[in-house]
Amino acid sequence: MNENILGIVAGVLTSVSMIPQLIKVIREKNVEDISLLMLLVLISGLSLWVWYGFEKDELPIIISNAFAVLVNISLLICYIKYNNKK
Amino acid sequence: MNENILGIVAGVLTSVSMIPQLIKVIREKNVEDISLLMLLVLISGLSLWVWYGFEKDELPIIISNAFAVLVNISLLICYIKYNNKK
Repeated sequence: MNENILGIVAGVLTSVSMIPQLIKVIREKNVEDISLLMLLVLISGLSLWVWYGFEKDELPIIISNAFAVLVNISLLICYIKYNNKK
Repeated sequence: MNENILGIVAGVLTSVSMIPQLIKVIREKNVEDISLLMLLVLISGLSLWVWYGFEKDELPIIISNAFAVLVNISLLICYIKYNNKK
């Protein structure tokens, strides 16, 4: 299989699997199950993967991890927003 | 920065961020917040990333995604185990 297609399919699957968490948090306005430290560690790690993708010049890695950074920054924003309400 | 070191650091960070979810599920024996479909989609995606890593011959991608597959298969086993108890 073409490596780029393989990477894109892999990226779409791992990206899609993150959406329900975000929807759940936005809908329920409840972030008590989310660990702030882990969210920050995850965002740092995903950002490094984007950097790695640029270094290696691999588009599937850049796109899927950049998307994951966006989803997790959204979760971070929700965390700050809903955690303050308590 | 050396690309492999960058990839390993990125992999360690994204891998570490997954552990608390697994510990939480094992400790609380509660899987009601986990979506089976999304777990299956995620495991499929991560497995394709391992394949992608082999195709591109990139060890950081292989190791970090293989680790993620293991964590999520453990979650899947917990899901089957604790979901049946209800």
